[in-house]
Amino acid sequence: MASAGSNNRVITGWAARDASGVLTPYTYTLRETGPEDVLIKVLYCGICHTDIHQAKNHLGMSNYPMVPGHEVAGEVAEVGSKVSKFRVGDTVGVGVVVGCCRACGPCKANIEQYCNKRIWSYNDVYTDGKPTQGGFAPAMVVDQKFVVKIPDGLAPEQAAPLLCAGLTVYSPLKSFGLMKEGLKGGILGLGGVGHMGVKIAKAMGHHITVISSSDKKREEAMEHLGADAYLVSSDADQMAAAVDTLDYIIDTIPVFHPLEPYLPLLKVDGKLIMMGVINQPMQFVTPMIMLGRKSIIGTFIGSMEEAQEMLEFCKEKGLTSMIEMVKMESVNQAIERLERNDVRYRFVVDVARSKL
Amino acid sequence: MASAGSNNRVITGWAARDASGVLTPYTYTLRETGPEDVLIKVLYCGICHTDIHQAKNHLGMSNYPMVPGHEVAGEVAEVGSKVSKFRVGDTVGVGVVVGCCRACGPCKANIEQYCNKRIWSYNDVYTDGKPTQGGFAPAMVVDQKFVVKIPDGLAPEQAAPLLCAGLTVYSPLKSFGLMKEGLKGGILGLGGVGHMGVKIAKAMGHHITVISSSDKKREEAMEHLGADAYLVSSDADQMAAAVDTLDYIIDTIPVFHPLEPYLPLLKVDGKLIMMGVINQPMQFVTPMIMLGRKSIIGTFIGSMEEAQEMLEFCKEKGLTSMIEMVKMESVNQAIERLERNDVRYRFVVDVARSKL
Repeated sequence: MASAGSNNRVITGWAARDASGVLTPYTYTLRETGPEDVLIKVLYCGICHTDIHQAKNHLGMSNYPMVPGHEVAGEVAEVGSKVSKFRVGDTVGVGVVVGCCRACGPCKANIEQYCNKRIWSYNDVYTDGKPTQGGFAPAMVVDQKFVVKIPDGLAPEQAAPLLCAGLTVYSPLKSFGLMKEGLKGGILGLGGVGHMGVKIAKAMGHHITVISSSDKKREEAMEHLGADAYLVSSDADQMAAAVDTLDYIIDTIPVFHPLEPYLPLLKVDGKLIMMGVINQPMQFVTPMIMLGRKSIIGTFIGSMEEAQEMLEFCKEKGLTSMIEMVKMESVNQAIERLERNDVRYRFVVDVARSKL
Repeated sequence: MASAGSNNRVITGWAARDASGVLTPYTYTLRETGPEDVLIKVLYCGICHTDIHQAKNHLGMSNYPMVPGHEVAGEVAEVGSKVSKFRVGDTVGVGVVVGCCRACGPCKANIEQYCNKRIWSYNDVYTDGKPTQGGFAPAMVVDQKFVVKIPDGLAPEQAAPLLCAGLTVYSPLKSFGLMKEGLKGGILGLGGVGHMGVKIAKAMGHHITVISSSDKKREEAMEHLGADAYLVSSDADQMAAAVDTLDYIIDTIPVFHPLEPYLPLLKVDGKLIMMGVINQPMQFVTPMIMLGRKSIIGTFIGSMEEAQEMLEFCKEKGLTSMIEMVKMESVNQAIERLERNDVRYRFVVDVARSKL
């Protein structure tokens, strides 16, 4: 990587070159460390489903070459003159957003993830007019506002998936007033986000039911993730018995699915919290939400404030994510396996120990 | 009507006999005034769209003969031995619900409209096993829990539509934390509920935009109802200019309609509040609610506590509903006109001055 303080900002990350999404080494130049910037030596970077969507241009908005990666754990190598929050050597994290307008309602309310001018950590254009590039690379330069401190005692490789998957479930529980003991929650979809949902909601003191289409994941959910109950959605008797029992459902399924089976599981004032980008229209009939004052709510990652708070929460609760470490040389195979959901539950690239 | 204290409880109301929904005189017997009961001489009764759905068996759950009417204003004629809230001569109101289990979560939380064992004011079976009959009749016997006091200074004919249409908009604004000055709201659909929505939200100090498919109702909305703005949903430029401006939309449209045009009008944390029974599936794509943490929330009338509070609020604010009075002899014509939306904005039957 670039040595701290030098002008040599030329680095080699791994980039997608086209919609095949195959990553290969790509050499590019980092910007100088501005007054508010932090130069980060990347240690670990999680692989999220969104990385695949972006690398393969599933959303039709991809620009190449593209270095993905938005669950970044690293070490501060250099700080700008006005950086007060971090010092060289700190263990830090970067997530999905690296810029915002700082003037709009959401920015002023410190929920900058909802700023219409937010800048993504890759596949976007930074304020200097240059492309942003993500964490599948030896280093990143990021404005201090979008860097969080990884607390001592939380392993950086564990922290990486928390910065997107973890935050995505922590934020709605916090902001919708659900961060209190004794609630009953459901988790729909047991992938990278869903497994964090079980762990974080359990750490908040909730009774958690994993809802799945078959019995296949029962042992995994109950024994390994610590869920309290397991509900097979294809079993009409089980579903009928579970009507009116849940305060919320965290719906992590990233593809079209019917909502009618799940809305009746919610109590009065229950919330169906949706976080998967699904462009095929979802459906519901109004009596299902009217009789019970239920809501279907969208949520999108979380704020930087919440990210910092969530890391402290995870440290305090001793919460860890379940990860499988891979080297960058194997990243394309890992992506293929992730597409088949063949991972328990999150791949993390060991960037610092990879040959780049 | 039955004279207070007599055993002669035989009265003649107007009932639908079959799915034609045509109302004709029907003689039936009221139950005795039990310890917790109030015998009410009906003065006025509003006509709500739901009355049509019930009378014509649109929901497939109608039992005949059926005396509709659930926006009832009347005078207390007799009280049971344990009735403490009311005295003979009080002006009172009855709404959509006349019974509940008193034991479940919603009942204990005083939101008995969400009790799964709630008893409707008509087309239902009371605890004595007899059919409930509504307010298109000279008298009703109702448990005191489901009776509200119409405050002095609020005309009973004005109060009648408040007991369903008014409560239906007041309750979500109150319970979703929207009863504060300075919010910006949208009203979708300018019928009986929509017109109350404009008036009640204005009385809460909100800036109100009426959203309509054409320019036809502009003068009505702005001049007569006091809306602050009028937005034509078929005008792409107007709609684009209104993106990200509303804290909530009260969606009163009782038939299928697309939601995509309206969700972008909501600010971050904005709420689309749905109150129309629509059995054709409504649709949305998740990014429309995710980017902005928006919610689609159902709501259903309101609680008895909220009904009492809403009447006090309306009295204090000098709020009146816009009604057209009809006699019972004309109720079938009024129903036909309501089906064509040919009413500004609510029919109220002058029951006490009708020949029954």
